[in-house]
Amino acid sequence: MKIAVLGTGLAGQTIGSKLVHLGHEVMMGSRDADNPKAVMWAKEEANPQHAIFGTFANAAAFGDVIFNCTLGAATLNALRLAGADNMKGKILIDTSNPLDYNGEVWTLTVCNDDSLGEQIQRTYPDTFVVKTLNTVNCNVMVDPDKLGEKTTVFLSGNSADAKASVNKYLHDWFGWRSVVDLGDITTSRGVEMYTILWRNIRLATSAQKFNIKVVSS
Amino acid sequence: MKIAVLGTGLAGQTIGSKLVHLGHEVMMGSRDADNPKAVMWAKEEANPQHAIFGTFANAAAFGDVIFNCTLGAATLNALRLAGADNMKGKILIDTSNPLDYNGEVWTLTVCNDDSLGEQIQRTYPDTFVVKTLNTVNCNVMVDPDKLGEKTTVFLSGNSADAKASVNKYLHDWFGWRSVVDLGDITTSRGVEMYTILWRNIRLATSAQKFNIKVVSS
Repeated sequence: MKIAVLGTGLAGQTIGSKLVHLGHEVMMGSRDADNPKAVMWAKEEANPQHAIFGTFANAAAFGDVIFNCTLGAATLNALRLAGADNMKGKILIDTSNPLDYNGEVWTLTVCNDDSLGEQIQRTYPDTFVVKTLNTVNCNVMVDPDKLGEKTTVFLSGNSADAKASVNKYLHDWFGWRSVVDLGDITTSRGVEMYTILWRNIRLATSAQKFNIKVVSS
Repeated sequence: MKIAVLGTGLAGQTIGSKLVHLGHEVMMGSRDADNPKAVMWAKEEANPQHAIFGTFANAAAFGDVIFNCTLGAATLNALRLAGADNMKGKILIDTSNPLDYNGEVWTLTVCNDDSLGEQIQRTYPDTFVVKTLNTVNCNVMVDPDKLGEKTTVFLSGNSADAKASVNKYLHDWFGWRSVVDLGDITTSRGVEMYTILWRNIRLATSAQKFNIKVVSS
């Protein structure tokens, strides 16, 4: 499949590399067509024909599916550059969190009565936004089995079909076996607000890799 | 031990009953000394001498340890009625969440750059506020083993000694074996904000009893 990965940070590189290894064609998008991190990423991939790079718009036009791996604070601007037409009718897998990293204690730039997931969906009504993977670190995103237990990841989105597709991608590409569909895109609020607890758990436990598992009876 | 339980709802009744069964003397506090729910609760306990009731102030004065089980929206007023002097030098175990239940989607009345836990601690600087158990339903609070797996509960508070005591109470009274100390009272933000995800999980899974387990590697 042709897949766009918007963002050149750790999440974008980790997801991009995993997808290239699986045989997909991945275009990493960034503000500048020759972003040094994207250039370096493509160079280090074993299969360079399948690891290409370009602008946000190039990548969005290229991908049948689009991963948003930009920082939350930069997401809306990145998607504006990607262009509504290039994302029209496509699934946008939104892994971002609207975090403000300034200050010792992290806060969110939007929460409680709105979320970044909803802002994206409102801005691009013809794109199928599915929020997921934003509750785990990038090395857990693409390899949940490393944790030794079947932990949980969530889906938020308005389209049942798009969520079914993303559920299959999560399973087939990354190995996720416990995926909870939380409901429509307003449930992005919960998973985005959880990142504050995620941060606290990380600081408290010093765990490099962790996730939560929903246990019910 | 003499224990105060502020609030006559399900959480207060469940915690109160568990503590009475364990042999503690519990006073349930409410706005009115003869709150019908408190009267009924005390009447139904097998050991009525150990299940008594009174005003918030009566209960706070009675307890060596105080559980806040009031609704978040009512907490600050309830504690004002309980009285700073009655809580001075004592541990206040805060199980509440600042939820606004109006509207189909729950929101928080305070979050992101403040929390109810911090508001309580700021208002009562001579009381040792420890936020915990607010991430689970009341039937999980007092019987985590029912879930069949060792799930996680959290501690937030400024006093290491108070948290150590509460950790022991959680273990000895209720059977909690996985307790993560998140840090000072500002970490209340994360656990309170998590309740939005908690709500979404509950609606999505229809699970009567559930909790999250932190899995790390």
